[in-house]
Amino acid sequence: MNNTLRHLSLIATLVATLGATHVQAAELSPAQATQYAQASFREYFELLALPNDAIVPADIRKNVEWLEAAFRKRGFTTQQLPNDGKPMLFAEWPGADPGRKTVLFYMHLDGQPVIAEQWQQKSPWVPVLKRKNAKGDWEEIDSAPLFSGPVDPEWRVFGRSSADDKAPIMMFLAAIDALKASGDKPGVNVKVVLDSEEEKGSPSIGKVMLAHRDLLRNDAIVIHDGPMHATNRPTLIFGNRGAAMARLTVYGAKVSLHSGHYGNYSPNPAQRLATLLASMKDEQGRVTVQGYYDHVKLGDAERKIMAAVPDDEGALKKRLGIAKTDAVGANYQEAMQYPSLNVRGMQSAAVGDKAANIVPDTAVAEIDVRTTPDSTAAYLGKLVEAHIQKQGYHIVKGKPTDEDRARYDKLASFDMQTEGGDAAGTPMDSAVGQWAYTAMVDAFGAKPEPVRIRMMGGTVPTAEIVEALKVPFAIVPLVNADNNQHASNENMRMGNYIDGTRTIYSLITHPFTAR
Amino acid sequence: MNNTLRHLSLIATLVATLGATHVQAAELSPAQATQYAQASFREYFELLALPNDAIVPADIRKNVEWLEAAFRKRGFTTQQLPNDGKPMLFAEWPGADPGRKTVLFYMHLDGQPVIAEQWQQKSPWVPVLKRKNAKGDWEEIDSAPLFSGPVDPEWRVFGRSSADDKAPIMMFLAAIDALKASGDKPGVNVKVVLDSEEEKGSPSIGKVMLAHRDLLRNDAIVIHDGPMHATNRPTLIFGNRGAAMARLTVYGAKVSLHSGHYGNYSPNPAQRLATLLASMKDEQGRVTVQGYYDHVKLGDAERKIMAAVPDDEGALKKRLGIAKTDAVGANYQEAMQYPSLNVRGMQSAAVGDKAANIVPDTAVAEIDVRTTPDSTAAYLGKLVEAHIQKQGYHIVKGKPTDEDRARYDKLASFDMQTEGGDAAGTPMDSAVGQWAYTAMVDAFGAKPEPVRIRMMGGTVPTAEIVEALKVPFAIVPLVNADNNQHASNENMRMGNYIDGTRTIYSLITHPFTAR
Repeated sequence: MNNTLRHLSLIATLVATLGATHVQAAELSPAQATQYAQASFREYFELLALPNDAIVPADIRKNVEWLEAAFRKRGFTTQQLPNDGKPMLFAEWPGADPGRKTVLFYMHLDGQPVIAEQWQQKSPWVPVLKRKNAKGDWEEIDSAPLFSGPVDPEWRVFGRSSADDKAPIMMFLAAIDALKASGDKPGVNVKVVLDSEEEKGSPSIGKVMLAHRDLLRNDAIVIHDGPMHATNRPTLIFGNRGAAMARLTVYGAKVSLHSGHYGNYSPNPAQRLATLLASMKDEQGRVTVQGYYDHVKLGDAERKIMAAVPDDEGALKKRLGIAKTDAVGANYQEAMQYPSLNVRGMQSAAVGDKAANIVPDTAVAEIDVRTTPDSTAAYLGKLVEAHIQKQGYHIVKGKPTDEDRARYDKLASFDMQTEGGDAAGTPMDSAVGQWAYTAMVDAFGAKPEPVRIRMMGGTVPTAEIVEALKVPFAIVPLVNADNNQHASNENMRMGNYIDGTRTIYSLITHPFTAR
Repeated sequence: MNNTLRHLSLIATLVATLGATHVQAAELSPAQATQYAQASFREYFELLALPNDAIVPADIRKNVEWLEAAFRKRGFTTQQLPNDGKPMLFAEWPGADPGRKTVLFYMHLDGQPVIAEQWQQKSPWVPVLKRKNAKGDWEEIDSAPLFSGPVDPEWRVFGRSSADDKAPIMMFLAAIDALKASGDKPGVNVKVVLDSEEEKGSPSIGKVMLAHRDLLRNDAIVIHDGPMHATNRPTLIFGNRGAAMARLTVYGAKVSLHSGHYGNYSPNPAQRLATLLASMKDEQGRVTVQGYYDHVKLGDAERKIMAAVPDDEGALKKRLGIAKTDAVGANYQEAMQYPSLNVRGMQSAAVGDKAANIVPDTAVAEIDVRTTPDSTAAYLGKLVEAHIQKQGYHIVKGKPTDEDRARYDKLASFDMQTEGGDAAGTPMDSAVGQWAYTAMVDAFGAKPEPVRIRMMGGTVPTAEIVEALKVPFAIVPLVNADNNQHASNENMRMGNYIDGTRTIYSLITHPFTAR
């Protein structure tokens, strides 16, 4: 991950010359892709009918069994990877050629929990077809034409995991069906691993992968998860921020006090917390904790790639309802390259009906820190802690004792959980990145070019997935950005399903040449 | 109230010469006071057995009827003052002399609500006698000796309203019993009004008083309510701060956002609220809103009187558990002379188990402002509003519209309730203040001198009580400071009951000479 910068100067040149140097591989035409995608819709509906919240191991097993059969039917060798009752699935395309590189395709079969009553359909486990009506609402329509007639790319299938992440699995199977029918030669050896606990943060993926190191051995991992860029252009992601949680508590008097008798006298912890938080950021939302951004080094080449991402920030601000953004980066993509310091919750005593005329005894801020590969949670946490001390605070573990109270004017506790949810980053000019980029350009053309995102702001368990095997990776998301992922009314746009089938076909058929 | 300053220069001289100029009146010895206090304990227990939450008018009426009988029995003429089913009680000592000044004694018969299970006794409505045991806990003891044997001043009677405010009413009756027995001549004409809704903020006292203006006509009002100084020295209070509430809401994006995808990008309203609150006070807790303290003018004479109040700030800080106080005033009493700006509650999204990785959509601070006679809620509210605007905020009423959001970077709403709970203040050298001070010195001696408090920090409905009749006032609290007023296990120290009887006797027998 630390090679990012070293390699970056190469990328502009490489990208410019790709067309000239790479071997043209087989592609799937839009018509072919539609044909094989459509042929997979029955199985897609079947798969969506299987509940897949990893909190119910029996449900996970049903999904694994269904998927194992689907992969075997197509000629894959498969193996369930035991994981405490919630097995993962490994599948391998036969005929591996030692002369070719091996790519491990990662997807996940589990889904987010559902709140069934929030879904505008009979059940999240009974997928339905919808189209947007004249009023702009999603209207359920007969799904029969989906399986036989012409497919409208704007149609959407609604159901839990319809996008996240069962659609990529089905696109993958559709691409394999197309490959088998065309007789095209794969450009890489193909392995697949399907995680069973991604929505729980993939707590076991590293362990399971290490336990099957030889089986899973590969030259690069492709992660098919998460949404594409909002433009639906082919999207390639080179990393994601990590997430760490902290709780900052400022202490006032031992108990809440009558605000008449003690307002102006006993220090107010809510006021002090406010002052402390205010000291951590400037008016433009930039973190002022010393050293916080020091490890972020963005060169001109990277800035250029980020500026090329076709984010419509005017539309975004309108959607969010804000007139101006924080000034951490020059644009949205740049902002995501920096670690964040976000107050995700704050409370002192109560507001509304429960508010009382008191000087509160404590004030709490819950903070989430988004980390980057070079700015870890442990590093950032230490900086914040030093900052708090620099503001005159004595930091206590747990509640202050009477002695602490007698001795120190300003008392706070700061507890940071630095484990889990690490950031991940891979050089934008890595071999696997080049290979995936070329495949996308060959399938969809160079203009407009695929969207390359250096680091997405959110946290996905990339680090957990790739660190066990220590191989390069690329994230290739395939589903529409507005899929309501994790929420009710999750949905999959059919145009994306077809395009995703083409993308996977192109990846599989492109020879992967490590530099 | 605006005369405070004009008169203050006189007070030092007057106080010094009081001993020489005033007519010595009749006093009650400690033994006599104990005798008449003890004789009143049966009635005190009877009165405490009557529930008196003003939310139940029938309960209030039972208290009024009981009290009316108690006053009549002693020779008072009485009249119930209708108040929407919760009458107040007026009583007048017969034989008013037009040559004497008339003093209206204000007390209240209603009490705070109770949460019975929080009381360490059978019922808040069954008063019990307790003494502190060797372990320092309050231990219930047989109450029989209270009615016949020697009274231990450290004994306490526990029950709702045992202190606030039924004890002063009973001390008053005990003092009258003593006066009748001694044959001493009253120094003033005595009127009494018992409020029935003080714990609800005395919403009707002004209206009821105005409706009976002639009946209640007087030269000064003495308010027997609230706790004495913690030293239990005779205490005289010349005013109290008012209370006003405000709610400050800072708006972020229209909805809560994923903190990974939008942290560092969409402004965080909790962070902004923190910065805004931080701009309102300095590190020492002094309000920095322009003009906030401008109307507070404290002269050397006043500062001297305040410094003379025997507050043990070392012990207070230890009890509160703070190493240092805010620096609004040079001492506790001075701090109470200034208007306050206190964050009584603060919230943005959630903390603890409910915290989520979001950029919250709003952040709210509930603020209470303690006002002073010269710094009203309306005046202070305007200053705060102007301050918010000076920080770059556009102030909206209710939620911002899409247009507001497109146009203004910083959006907040600020709603201040300026009605009710006004501050009250009376010159420390007023005739009524002089008269009460003299009575206290004559009863208890000049060394240590009575505690004079220019303005107490809390808010009592003094303004509502005195403004209707536009007469000078003095607050003469009689109950122990640690009485658990408003809370469970409210209690009354017997030593204070006896001393209070002496104080009232001294007030009643002292001629009141208006200057």
